Amino acid sequence: MTSAKIAVIGGDGIGPEVTAEAIKVLTAVAPDTFEFVDYDLGAERWQRTGEVLPDSVLEELKHVDAIALGAVGAAPGSKAIPSGLLERGLLLKLRFAFDHAINLRPSILYPGVPTPLAPAVLEGRTVDFVVVREGTEGLYCGNGGAVRVGTAQELATEVSVNTFFGVERVVRDAFGRARARRGKLTLLHKHNVLVNAGRLWNRAFTEIAAEFPDVATNYLHIDAAMIAMVVDPSQFDVIVTDNLFGDIVTDLAAAVTGGIGLAASANINPTGEYPSMFEPVHGSAPDIAGKGIADPTAAISSMALLLDHLGRPELARRIDEAVSADIAERGSEKLGTTQIGDRIAARVA
Amino acid sequence: MTSAKIAVIGGDGIGPEVTAEAIKVLTAVAPDTFEFVDYDLGAERWQRTGEVLPDSVLEELKHVDAIALGAVGAAPGSKAIPSGLLERGLLLKLRFAFDHAINLRPSILYPGVPTPLAPAVLEGRTVDFVVVREGTEGLYCGNGGAVRVGTAQELATEVSVNTFFGVERVVRDAFGRARARRGKLTLLHKHNVLVNAGRLWNRAFTEIAAEFPDVATNYLHIDAAMIAMVVDPSQFDVIVTDNLFGDIVTDLAAAVTGGIGLAASANINPTGEYPSMFEPVHGSAPDIAGKGIADPTAAISSMALLLDHLGRPELARRIDEAVSADIAERGSEKLGTTQIGDRIAARVA
Ligand SMILES: CC(C)[C@H](C(=O)O)[C@@H](O)C(=O)O
Ligand SMILES: CC(C)[C@H](C(=O)O)[C@@H](O)C(=O)O
Repeated sequence: MTSAKIAVIGGDGIGPEVTAEAIKVLTAVAPDTFEFVDYDLGAERWQRTGEVLPDSVLEELKHVDAIALGAVGAAPGSKAIPSGLLERGLLLKLRFAFDHAINLRPSILYPGVPTPLAPAVLEGRTVDFVVVREGTEGLYCGNGGAVRVGTAQELATEVSVNTFFGVERVVRDAFGRARARRGKLTLLHKHNVLVNAGRLWNRAFTEIAAEFPDVATNYLHIDAAMIAMVVDPSQFDVIVTDNLFGDIVTDLAAAVTGGIGLAASANINPTGEYPSMFEPVHGSAPDIAGKGIADPTAAISSMALLLDHLGRPELARRIDEAVSADIAERGSEKLGTTQIGDRIAARVA
Repeated sequence: MTSAKIAVIGGDGIGPEVTAEAIKVLTAVAPDTFEFVDYDLGAERWQRTGEVLPDSVLEELKHVDAIALGAVGAAPGSKAIPSGLLERGLLLKLRFAFDHAINLRPSILYPGVPTPLAPAVLEGRTVDFVVVREGTEGLYCGNGGAVRVGTAQELATEVSVNTFFGVERVVRDAFGRARARRGKLTLLHKHNVLVNAGRLWNRAFTEIAAEFPDVATNYLHIDAAMIAMVVDPSQFDVIVTDNLFGDIVTDLAAAVTGGIGLAASANINPTGEYPSMFEPVHGSAPDIAGKGIADPTAAISSMALLLDHLGRPELARRIDEAVSADIAERGSEKLGTTQIGDRIAARVA
């Protein structure tokens, strides 16, 4: 990587605000390395032009080295924008078009960060795990339908699609990460009810486990995982799971490790054929948009994942360390969006 | 109700132990009222006879007034019993055969009960809500399939089935409960991704809301609900959701309100054509079975739901009050299974 082109999609609500700070930090840690191209996509563009993600833009995005995304989507219940239009037409569209099979979501409880969990749950324990969420299958494929819509006889279905190809690659990725970390991998599913998908996930997991004898494995039903996550999150190292379970468990993981203001994520294209995408786990939070109070930490940490992915792990570590140090220094002080960005940028420079 | 016949299915692991205490309390609160018929079903019977739930037993069960169930299922990962065999062949079979559309799961944080949540989250707040989980549709219908099983080309699907008939009745039930409680109903779904099912749930919710102008409504995506449940569970009064989301959110709800040792549930047949079924939310917990240490409180509280359903709310309240008083008295003392049963039985007598 001598120079790399980053597409920046700030998006909606607090998206552009936090993304600006992320870019600030990225520029500070690696000056003269990145070329940034801004893309005006999201609710505002849709309202102005009726376009969500024009084909020509999708085509252009194919050729960048990575995408930095803020957040998209209107407030739930908003009447101005049809529910899910931006999520499906932009965010999920990119994840599917660019085959983002590996959705990485690290959860770290930084010392001193307020958490909703009781001190007794956490005392003396380190919470530091990563969820490897499948990103291109499951219930996210849009393979549902409905008949007799709007009548008392309506039937609506949603189909969860699971292929060995899709499951194998994400499970293999997760085993690799577990090996490089503390050597423990947990599969989350619900195979006592979802027998077909469950059997496929189990088989892939068992087959690949044989290639990683040094990785200890276990299994939890998704419902049991809810309990585990609040009574002892320190038990996890790497978690692998499907698209919807991953969506659910990562919000809970973010909440117990201090909130989605801190949770970063990467949507990785495993072959490198398409650009990978880096975004905070949080949404567009329209209620606090424009006030300068959104926490940009998750967006900034996502830039560490970007640097890792682009082969600059030493720069990634510098961001991670700066984030961790800044969080420690912040304590319970409430800082503004740009203030946090400035502080972390100063640390990495 | 002068005399009522209760089918007792202790089941596996700690199931029979906690059920015995539940029956003890039921007998104490209403002597000479119930006739109990034991059914030997579960892992042990399957291993002995290969039978899970013979048709003749299902036929007999149709004619009882209610079913008290303990827990079924082998340990996850057990090699002795195929994954999900008992869950699907017994527990879910009963829920579906007896059209248990309304799966009620109250969550109450009793004063003094240890919770994994931090004091700051709960301070001065009351956590007392009920989840109304749909019980006969969604991803639980077993409408999935697979092709090329065992190969690298395997495709496995799971189909979530949602009918207006099924959704309308559970949503209507939930509105009724909200009206009788604090007048607040929250719908949990993921309609930005699951658009077909989401549109159906939204429509039913909106249509029925018009008949309940006194009930305040709101909506949360299931992932956002994870966060809400750990940062402010006191915000909930009644929650309505589908079968799988209900499974997931109720385990989390149980965890934050002191653990699944305390979480009761009812599987209600809304027409009264078939018997309803009452069971603790927890599983068979094979790891602690036979040790006399399983907490029977959830099984006992489930009997209050049974009494309510059979038209004896005053007796139900007596159990609820006894449970609450006993929990307060217990403090952090670890009591045995029969000890707790005896104490609560003595209180209600
Ligand atoms: C916005 C939404 C479509 C998205 C998802 O469900 O994947 C979000 O919740 C996430 O976790 O990135
Ligand atoms: C045992 C299992 C099939 C069941 C479910 O998923 O409904 C359980 O988790 C529950 O919540 O009652």
